[in-house]
Amino acid sequence: MNVLPTKLCCTSYPLCRSITGDGLRESLRIIQEHIPLEIREVPSGTPVFDWTVPKEWNIKDAYIKGPDGEKIVDIACSNLHVLNYSVPVKCRLSLNELKEHLYSLPQHPDWIPYRTSYYNENWGFCLSQNQLAELQEGDYEVCIDSSLREGYLTYGECFLEGETEDEVLISTHVCHPSLANDNLSGIALAAFLAKHLRGEMLRYSYRLLFIPGTIGSITWLAKNEDRVARIKHGLVVVCVGDAGSMTYKKTRQGNAEIDQVVEHVLRHSGEEHRVVNFVPYGYDERQFCSPAFNLPVGSLSRSPHGRFPQYHTSADNLEFVQPEHLGDSFSKYLEVLHILESNKKYLNLNPKCEPQLGKRGLYRALGGNLDSKSAELAMLWVLNLSDGNHTLLNIAEKSGVSFQNIRDAADNLVRHQLLSELP
Amino acid sequence: MNVLPTKLCCTSYPLCRSITGDGLRESLRIIQEHIPLEIREVPSGTPVFDWTVPKEWNIKDAYIKGPDGEKIVDIACSNLHVLNYSVPVKCRLSLNELKEHLYSLPQHPDWIPYRTSYYNENWGFCLSQNQLAELQEGDYEVCIDSSLREGYLTYGECFLEGETEDEVLISTHVCHPSLANDNLSGIALAAFLAKHLRGEMLRYSYRLLFIPGTIGSITWLAKNEDRVARIKHGLVVVCVGDAGSMTYKKTRQGNAEIDQVVEHVLRHSGEEHRVVNFVPYGYDERQFCSPAFNLPVGSLSRSPHGRFPQYHTSADNLEFVQPEHLGDSFSKYLEVLHILESNKKYLNLNPKCEPQLGKRGLYRALGGNLDSKSAELAMLWVLNLSDGNHTLLNIAEKSGVSFQNIRDAADNLVRHQLLSELP
Amino acid sequence: MNVLPTKLCCTSYPLCRSITGDGLRESLRIIQEHIPLEIREVPSGTPVFDWTVPKEWNIKDAYIKGPDGEKIVDIACSNLHVLNYSVPVKCRLSLNELKEHLYSLPQHPDWIPYRTSYYNENWGFCLSQNQLAELQEGDYEVCIDSSLREGYLTYGECFLEGETEDEVLISTHVCHPSLANDNLSGIALAAFLAKHLRGEMLRYSYRLLFIPGTIGSITWLAKNEDRVARIKHGLVVVCVGDAGSMTYKKTRQGNAEIDQVVEHVLRHSGEEHRVVNFVPYGYDERQFCSPAFNLPVGSLSRSPHGRFPQYHTSADNLEFVQPEHLGDSFSKYLEVLHILESNKKYLNLNPKCEPQLGKRGLYRALGGNLDSKSAELAMLWVLNLSDGNHTLLNIAEKSGVSFQNIRDAADNLVRHQLLSELP
Repeated sequence: MNVLPTKLCCTSYPLCRSITGDGLRESLRIIQEHIPLEIREVPSGTPVFDWTVPKEWNIKDAYIKGPDGEKIVDIACSNLHVLNYSVPVKCRLSLNELKEHLYSLPQHPDWIPYRTSYYNENWGFCLSQNQLAELQEGDYEVCIDSSLREGYLTYGECFLEGETEDEVLISTHVCHPSLANDNLSGIALAAFLAKHLRGEMLRYSYRLLFIPGTIGSITWLAKNEDRVARIKHGLVVVCVGDAGSMTYKKTRQGNAEIDQVVEHVLRHSGEEHRVVNFVPYGYDERQFCSPAFNLPVGSLSRSPHGRFPQYHTSADNLEFVQPEHLGDSFSKYLEVLHILESNKKYLNLNPKCEPQLGKRGLYRALGGNLDSKSAELAMLWVLNLSDGNHTLLNIAEKSGVSFQNIRDAADNLVRHQLLSELP
Repeated sequence: MNVLPTKLCCTSYPLCRSITGDGLRESLRIIQEHIPLEIREVPSGTPVFDWTVPKEWNIKDAYIKGPDGEKIVDIACSNLHVLNYSVPVKCRLSLNELKEHLYSLPQHPDWIPYRTSYYNENWGFCLSQNQLAELQEGDYEVCIDSSLREGYLTYGECFLEGETEDEVLISTHVCHPSLANDNLSGIALAAFLAKHLRGEMLRYSYRLLFIPGTIGSITWLAKNEDRVARIKHGLVVVCVGDAGSMTYKKTRQGNAEIDQVVEHVLRHSGEEHRVVNFVPYGYDERQFCSPAFNLPVGSLSRSPHGRFPQYHTSADNLEFVQPEHLGDSFSKYLEVLHILESNKKYLNLNPKCEPQLGKRGLYRALGGNLDSKSAELAMLWVLNLSDGNHTLLNIAEKSGVSFQNIRDAADNLVRHQLLSELP
Repeated sequence: MNVLPTKLCCTSYPLCRSITGDGLRESLRIIQEHIPLEIREVPSGTPVFDWTVPKEWNIKDAYIKGPDGEKIVDIACSNLHVLNYSVPVKCRLSLNELKEHLYSLPQHPDWIPYRTSYYNENWGFCLSQNQLAELQEGDYEVCIDSSLREGYLTYGECFLEGETEDEVLISTHVCHPSLANDNLSGIALAAFLAKHLRGEMLRYSYRLLFIPGTIGSITWLAKNEDRVARIKHGLVVVCVGDAGSMTYKKTRQGNAEIDQVVEHVLRHSGEEHRVVNFVPYGYDERQFCSPAFNLPVGSLSRSPHGRFPQYHTSADNLEFVQPEHLGDSFSKYLEVLHILESNKKYLNLNPKCEPQLGKRGLYRALGGNLDSKSAELAMLWVLNLSDGNHTLLNIAEKSGVSFQNIRDAADNLVRHQLLSELP
């Protein structure tokens, strides 16, 4: 797992992805090399709920030349240098006039900030505070060779059919340019989840969305309003490659099955982690959890949204994301999906007193005390609580036994006709 | 606020208020100088549930003369000296016989206790332990020139009509003589709440009761049984002028809206405070919260009932109550009523995804991170939770944002047709 | 109480009780000397749910003779020496062959372990680790003169009829030989509970079961399936004679009335104690709380099941159980049953405001402050909460007043026609 997503991150890192345009198309094409991804194009001007699909933005070049005619800021060096969605401009202006279009980060003087102006026509450049401080008085030439025209909003959708129509939604935003943790890490993890799941027998169907932030989820929801009831569980994948410990942001519902599952996985990991309540700010869970949808969609990240200093700066680069962290996040996601897939209810077929496990070879022959981690005790828990009211996860939580041991116990009991799966 | 209630306290302090009689009538008349107060008179002997309105008690004089013929205890010095509701007596007796009618406070030898015998005919005098200890053997003359005759129970009622018939009940007891915190402070605060509210547009109607303790609330409930269902929230105002921190005693229901509101105000005050569960002992909340009524009536005080040493002694005097504490209590009450008035439910008119706040000038144009105290975040909370299930207070509590900021956000969204008030 | 149960323990200690057989019959006969106990005999081979009543086991002799012909292990010294339910054997074998049938406790080298093999035909001896270590190479003669034949499973049942058909179940296991705390202590306590209750007017009927562990409760439930709905509360009595503090294991329901009652008694004891959630392991509560029955049966012990080192060893002897601990457990059980008997709901006949307690002599004549432990306050609590929704125990819990004081207050109010018992 560790090598391929890292490669996907590296290949996509230099592309100038925005919420529309060719950088986004190229990024989706790279994902298509790994998984079957359907590309959707929604025309500019399409109404989507209270919003309208914006014009398509593309950019060929952007630079500032100093008084001596040298390029001092150049999109070729970093595509963060241009204010994302800048309208075309070509003019000369004084340092003071120029400064109204310059953005820097005084608290991190070496870093270039990432700034956008999607819904307000504007232009500008981002640069380090150090570079800004050294600019001399004089005439500057600025050029932004961009286009903002009727076009399309592009996104990718990968559907994996399972036994049932019930869906697990995995959504990741694809819009930020040259930011590694936010969100090449999420794109890579989602892509390789899809790749991994393709080979498996699945109980749920999986829908993986590679969409521009905010407008992408709004557009998808507007186009698929009649289908959202199929979504039984969901996760928004963001910022999963840094060294921070895991953070889970709960669904708006607050106690959905996905909340219980992720909390179980994090608690049993034995690692430091945070679980936070839903807040109506962050990434696309804002839309999935808007009141009319209120979908059971949480978000599982490492360092939480906006809480690491590198967030939305040039320091969120390929060094900030490390394969071992991406790999650890991937394994947590797999564990979550693994539990979702097998978190069923069973019925004890022998609910009056305990069945005689001993005569089936399921219980020690010699009387004595049970180890609290023993397979026998796990079976006793499953038998006692398989009354139609408890899922395997409920049993794991009540007993303190790991989900895996509870599931093994249930499988064993099913093999001995002592338990049957409830539909 | 600070001056007038203090003046009202001072004027009323010397009056000998009991649960009936002219001292009580005069006190109500003084309140009438400030607010429109209807005076009710209920005849002695009127049955009120399990009780009967008692005879009216009035007193002209009461003293003890020592063996040397000097007045050693005199109601003219403090009306606490006479056991409240003492029957008339004029006789001579020995020190030992007298002592059976004397009450003092050994643990506070300088203070005169306050004692009553409303429902058991008796007579007596209260004096300091120091004075008691100095009494010499000899003949004492006692005189209590009181009358206990058919008459009336008197109370005052101030009704302020609001938009709806739903009522907020503010009840305060007016029966104790020459005790400042218990309850001239409550009388003054309630009177000036009424004065303040008269000038306002009110959603609720307000009913302010100035009643003798216990028998007053029982009488009022007996006379108004068919009207109590209108009471949606209520507070019993007592002991609001001392230096102690605020104490809220919850309603018997335990999680009424008034409970939530007072707890929100106290928590957001940043000041030390106590919230205690309902107990069937204290002041008139005992009657309002009796099981057949079970009204949502709590009690907001400073030092809790009976828990300050000055309670029911001559040390609960005009120095014990300070204008700044009375003023602070008043502002807490106003804040509570302010929240009650505006704690409504709203409906997000755009519940599918977020509405586009930016195009309405309600959202920063430039992409970046939101301050957790920002107006934008308050609007996102209001939009996300205005699903018909949450009041503004519920939203404030869930978000951690102050009620005022949540209310401002709601007002802003209503102005932009993104939210509508639910009936 | 202290003398008789101790005597019962001593008399029964030497008997070789198993889950069937004459040792068990003799133990029940000894109990019959104290209480009216019906003895039931269920034939071997009877199907009971998923189980079958096993063959009856009896033993006359069991020993090992060493290479020099001396008896080195002899059931006459301790009936723990023989693996319980050993099949008959008489043979000579080498030390190595013999060792496959020997059980010891390396961590407690002086103690003899207690081991069973009820449902798997086997034979063996238990001995101390010290003795095992000293065995020399050579030829050993082993003899187990036991019989395993068609016979009966024997148990005892004592039924005490109360006013209603609703039953309290008291169940104790009678199967272990020469173990004092587990469970001669439980047998003695249950027997003397029955003896004590016989003399009382009872609201509930009581059913006391003296049954072999596991197969006994399964058999009883199979034979009485149509009658279990009468069981309203139950306790499994085990390990009640050691010096440890009390442990209560809750019912599977988790908040049954018996759970509330036992927790109240333990909390108000002021002594250290543990309350643990139900787990499907332990004693016969496993069967009573199997999902199809889910009876409100908890278990009240001293040191918890399996958590004291003497558990299932020769160190669980008559010195380990002390009369004062057995007596203390007995008094806790009595207190629990006492509360169950009187934990009723009442109705305040005067629910509009407080009734006037003073005119009935139920309230101090003189106004002042109430002591929080006063009878008046207990009456106010009972009146306030006797609305049809609160039992006396609920009132005790909400008020913090002891159950006894609440019950006295209720009795007093009933005498004054202010309260009536709800059916």
